[in-house]
Amino acid sequence: MIYFTPGPSQLYPTVKKHMTSALRNEVPSLSHRSAKYQEIVSSTVVGLRTLLTIPKTHSIFFVASGTEAMERIVENCVTKNSFHFINGAFSKRFFQTSIELKKNAKKHEVAMGQGFDFEEQIIPKQTELVCFTQNETSTGVSLPMDKLYELKKQNAKMLFVLDIVSSAPYVHVDFRSIDVAFFSVQKGFGLPAGLGVMIVGPDAIEKAEFLAKKGTNIGSYHNFLSLKTFADKYQTPETPNVLGQYLLGKVIGDMLKKGMTNIRKETEEKAALLYRFFDRHNRYIPFVKEKMFRSKTVITVVIPDGSKSVVQKLKERGFVVDRGYGELKETQIRIANFPATSKAAVNKLIARM
Amino acid sequence: MIYFTPGPSQLYPTVKKHMTSALRNEVPSLSHRSAKYQEIVSSTVVGLRTLLTIPKTHSIFFVASGTEAMERIVENCVTKNSFHFINGAFSKRFFQTSIELKKNAKKHEVAMGQGFDFEEQIIPKQTELVCFTQNETSTGVSLPMDKLYELKKQNAKMLFVLDIVSSAPYVHVDFRSIDVAFFSVQKGFGLPAGLGVMIVGPDAIEKAEFLAKKGTNIGSYHNFLSLKTFADKYQTPETPNVLGQYLLGKVIGDMLKKGMTNIRKETEEKAALLYRFFDRHNRYIPFVKEKMFRSKTVITVVIPDGSKSVVQKLKERGFVVDRGYGELKETQIRIANFPATSKAAVNKLIARM
Repeated sequence: MIYFTPGPSQLYPTVKKHMTSALRNEVPSLSHRSAKYQEIVSSTVVGLRTLLTIPKTHSIFFVASGTEAMERIVENCVTKNSFHFINGAFSKRFFQTSIELKKNAKKHEVAMGQGFDFEEQIIPKQTELVCFTQNETSTGVSLPMDKLYELKKQNAKMLFVLDIVSSAPYVHVDFRSIDVAFFSVQKGFGLPAGLGVMIVGPDAIEKAEFLAKKGTNIGSYHNFLSLKTFADKYQTPETPNVLGQYLLGKVIGDMLKKGMTNIRKETEEKAALLYRFFDRHNRYIPFVKEKMFRSKTVITVVIPDGSKSVVQKLKERGFVVDRGYGELKETQIRIANFPATSKAAVNKLIARM
Repeated sequence: MIYFTPGPSQLYPTVKKHMTSALRNEVPSLSHRSAKYQEIVSSTVVGLRTLLTIPKTHSIFFVASGTEAMERIVENCVTKNSFHFINGAFSKRFFQTSIELKKNAKKHEVAMGQGFDFEEQIIPKQTELVCFTQNETSTGVSLPMDKLYELKKQNAKMLFVLDIVSSAPYVHVDFRSIDVAFFSVQKGFGLPAGLGVMIVGPDAIEKAEFLAKKGTNIGSYHNFLSLKTFADKYQTPETPNVLGQYLLGKVIGDMLKKGMTNIRKETEEKAALLYRFFDRHNRYIPFVKEKMFRSKTVITVVIPDGSKSVVQKLKERGFVVDRGYGELKETQIRIANFPATSKAAVNKLIARM
């Protein structure tokens, strides 16, 4: 099967090979306090910094999932007021997380499938943290980065956090304008699930320090200060998913060899093939109307006769695509366009559609 | 190398085989909301219930680590007062977690290497949660279960939680007397790190419900109520370590085939070999003096001439043992006695000592 699913997805082609080398090198038996382990993490972190152009000002923290990242960010960056741009299930999950952690979460919500008009002045003045789902996995809406940088300029004192769970490593982020970003490895990196990565800038760390001094509960082992103390020596507070960290480093190495320019170009070519096909199709219709908001990595398509039979038909032909998210389940399909699937595979998928 | 380390440790002998079958069956690409995934988790959970004799009253929750379990338990079981029996680094970590989460944590602390006299009445009346590290990985002290059941009877209204991180699956727990227990898979189960398991009884769930109704912050996606909603359908709130859950189920299956009676018997025989050797040794001395407190799964040994050279010597001979924990690093070694290492391997280790 070729997995075009935007959840856990197709494994990056080299993962099996790296899994074999991990077992041969006894990676799962290594102590997470050993020098060998630190070398593995250092290699992963250094590779990631190069791949995503992450400046030294920003720390890299490992957690267990994107969902955990949301919790840790709210705990460590908000005394009281967070603000959320909502246009789907994952931006809503971020908002919900802030509510559950007893913060005063406010939102600006638009219909699923839509982007935002960032020219409007809607962020309340007292906001500490502004949360964006850069790529809504539930709807295939992607937010243009230049608009976000503009908004940050106008709200320089607020912390800006970016969920790039299903757009990394494709999306290019200028981290000088972003305080926190996070992703999980089972999407664009084509790895087994169970590892999340946070990229955390100095203003967010300072905020966590401020909250800690005030006596606010910022969590225990995974608060930003504890994470930073260990990250500075290429470790984690707890025994982490060592195998996941190793595999991530290896896949990053492969991606660096291929080059991000090539990966981005290929992603855009594959996305263009898919959108062109659906734009011309007589029954299937791209869900996101405004082209500037169309995700290059998660393509959502309205299937007026119902998604079930299309998903079933494709499965019989060796392709796994996902149905729509939540209430969109019956009427949409979602196709992931991650680096793990080749242009040839996308062409085959289109031919069998 | 044979890993006798009590952190990440020797992989259970069948893990490589199961890893291959996981990749062949495309387990890492499965959606965590699919029926196939639910079958995997159901098989793991049902197997674990049989292996550890977990009654239906208790739910099984998956988290990322034992350290995470500590945080979730304090968040969900304590309004204000926790009490901790401390005799090493991990019981101290549990206490510290409660402090960090702004609870009123009290403790009864004894020197490293010692157990407790449970006859003494030292638990304050207002205590809500009593925390025990059943097997202190840092010192090799194990607490006798019958004494804990007695104590629970005398303090029936308090929630009793048991850290069995480095004693599961060997330790036999009567869950009718225990409200919460937790372990992580990289120790006694011989699996890659990155997965923790909590076994949570009805009184602990009720406490979480009580706290939630009061408006207390019990965490977001991994609060007990959210975990239970998903666990009831063999799912997790977030995308979890699916591969870890699959491998755990497979190793549990292998352990069930072998039988817990045999595994326990073998563990005790191997522990007896090790303690007998060190009790008779003219320079190496078991750290835990009182035999009733000696762990069967983590054996700590005082090396008066220094641990470094012994660890090095054994490494050259193909055996990895750990040095003492923290301040005991220079003067002790720690030998894990988990099901993954055979009696023959233990005999070899002793012969090369």
